Amino acid sequence: MKNFVYHNPTKILFGTNTLEKIGGETIQYGKKVLLLYGQNSAKNNGIYSTIIQSLENAGCDITEFSGITPNPKLSMVKDAIELFRKNHCEVICAVGGGSVIDTGKAVSCGAVVKHDVWQFFATKKSIKSSMPLVCIPTLAGSGSENNHGMVITNDSKSLKFGYGSRYLYPKVSLINPETTFTASSFQTACGCVDIISHLLEVYCNSAVKNASLQQRIIEGVILAVMENCEAALANPENYSARAQLMWASSLALGGITSSGLGRIGFPMHLIEHSISAVYDTAHGAGLAVVLPAWLLHETSTHPDRIAQLGRNLFQLNGANSKTTAQQTAIRFRNWFRDIGCPVTLSDLQIDENDLQKIATHTEHLAKIWRLRDYPPDRVLKILELGR
Amino acid sequence: MKNFVYHNPTKILFGTNTLEKIGGETIQYGKKVLLLYGQNSAKNNGIYSTIIQSLENAGCDITEFSGITPNPKLSMVKDAIELFRKNHCEVICAVGGGSVIDTGKAVSCGAVVKHDVWQFFATKKSIKSSMPLVCIPTLAGSGSENNHGMVITNDSKSLKFGYGSRYLYPKVSLINPETTFTASSFQTACGCVDIISHLLEVYCNSAVKNASLQQRIIEGVILAVMENCEAALANPENYSARAQLMWASSLALGGITSSGLGRIGFPMHLIEHSISAVYDTAHGAGLAVVLPAWLLHETSTHPDRIAQLGRNLFQLNGANSKTTAQQTAIRFRNWFRDIGCPVTLSDLQIDENDLQKIATHTEHLAKIWRLRDYPPDRVLKILELGR
Repeated sequence: MKNFVYHNPTKILFGTNTLEKIGGETIQYGKKVLLLYGQNSAKNNGIYSTIIQSLENAGCDITEFSGITPNPKLSMVKDAIELFRKNHCEVICAVGGGSVIDTGKAVSCGAVVKHDVWQFFATKKSIKSSMPLVCIPTLAGSGSENNHGMVITNDSKSLKFGYGSRYLYPKVSLINPETTFTASSFQTACGCVDIISHLLEVYCNSAVKNASLQQRIIEGVILAVMENCEAALANPENYSARAQLMWASSLALGGITSSGLGRIGFPMHLIEHSISAVYDTAHGAGLAVVLPAWLLHETSTHPDRIAQLGRNLFQLNGANSKTTAQQTAIRFRNWFRDIGCPVTLSDLQIDENDLQKIATHTEHLAKIWRLRDYPPDRVLKILELGR
Repeated sequence: MKNFVYHNPTKILFGTNTLEKIGGETIQYGKKVLLLYGQNSAKNNGIYSTIIQSLENAGCDITEFSGITPNPKLSMVKDAIELFRKNHCEVICAVGGGSVIDTGKAVSCGAVVKHDVWQFFATKKSIKSSMPLVCIPTLAGSGSENNHGMVITNDSKSLKFGYGSRYLYPKVSLINPETTFTASSFQTACGCVDIISHLLEVYCNSAVKNASLQQRIIEGVILAVMENCEAALANPENYSARAQLMWASSLALGGITSSGLGRIGFPMHLIEHSISAVYDTAHGAGLAVVLPAWLLHETSTHPDRIAQLGRNLFQLNGANSKTTAQQTAIRFRNWFRDIGCPVTLSDLQIDENDLQKIATHTEHLAKIWRLRDYPPDRVLKILELGR
């Protein structure tokens, strides 16, 4: 194991009748609130009025900023920062999927610096402080409500970059699994692919040899996600399944599974971010194509860990590690297809002529993340396996 | 899933060259330090001088209190509280196994109240504040360095009680797995039994039906503990195995596995605490006897979950759930014996005449913890299965 610091200070309030507490939790950090939400979900699932009422009852002054889209845009982040400053806000409440929460994180660190917030992403400039953030996630997937990462798309440059800092942990996240009852089957499935991808990036991309603890935990979470995803798709109002997915989502990228495993590259994410930077694809949908392709590519050089995964998860037992690893990749692809996700580049309607652009964007990202060995020709080979 | 609050604010610094940081971490909470340690381990494994030097370099004034024993005694807690007050200490550093850390927790909450600290345990009086605590664990087992519980023995009354409060989370825990190189095989094995028992109490004693996420995580951690325990016993200086055990110990009772599962009774612990209240048995050794006996007793009424455990962990497949559950209990007993633990009451040299006393103590504890269905005759039946 590598040395590590683990310190996830986010307080989680989880369950039914939880969102009613947002006022009491938020007022502890300030009275003037910037409330961020997306296009429709907060109003569609009926939580909007609950939140407003709770904040008002607690004596908060609310400034609203809505319409945040998937693959959240830098231009909106900047508008939100401006509004935050103009109204002298003291705390941010982000209500929505990972996009809204990541926008909240970008505002929380961007509002306290004089320079362009994009410098954090583009030049890895250090974050040294942030404004307090309270989150209400409405989808199981990103886990952003319980971690220190964010991903933003620079819409003027078609770049999608991520960033992590200890100042990006939310102060509090209020999670009511009922808010996900109205998520569509497609959103639900994409969220589950996202959770699994977070787990597999860690599983596959650590250089630490004895990681049995982290690996057994990850295998367990994947099994639970697959089981509960199927149950939630069969009955969208299955509270128990929705709750299991929500908590799995929060845990998957909260630090438990990666602590001690050193620096983890997220190559599947870098490729997917490059796809959605160009195509505005739903993140989970892009991952459903990239993940099996990346696994298949990996089997040619590093089959052992993927084979172990297949043996432990699916009791696969091929003639050798390479075969078992290939079967594992195919198993994931088939399951992604079964739950309604696209699994090929043509499912995503990606033009052949754009593959080079995606590969170049990935190379750019890989350099920023100091990930060696992701030149365009390698990325193109991986994308080939996603045809 | 049940509603829950998850908020574990403890900061963990994990790895080699970590203990050198105790001064810098401690001084953030105060200059006047009460340093607690045990009988020998801190000096035997050479960390004592590192700790003193780091604290002195940071400008701390150190008051030492040493000689804390396993099954930590109320009388020592009271002495330590008196010393803390007399020297106007501001922060506690606890260096040792779970006993030393639990003593530190009892001092941290006992030093700020006028009443007898035992009232927290005996009457479940609320803890409303505490002094800051910094921990250096020297054994993988209790996980006390990353949780909000403590167990203290009232030596004048032969009672061993536990308590949990959010004010009992350490501020910081500095964990260097190398400190466990000098733990004996017996201590190492007992610690692993303790970790497994924490996981199985949660696994077996939740009323929540769909707990696949928590259950799969627990199964994974148990497998990793068994694998790494064997590796550490074969080579006590296997850093990787020691590190895996340390992190497993911290995670097992840190809240991740139990969140959403409602109130969990800890019946195996209540019985074991009753044994060690009377016999001063090593906690893990007592558990190695109680755990298989309790599982065996449970198979007669609730075999399904234990059978599932046996299928998932050991690929057991008996004629029916009851048989598989019994095989699971026996499998644990055999493994505990293999790693050098006592597995019967006679191994522990427990006198038949004391069984009633142990059963009465358990009933007493069960009432405090509002655990129904633990009258003396049931406890005696369980103990019978540990003969």
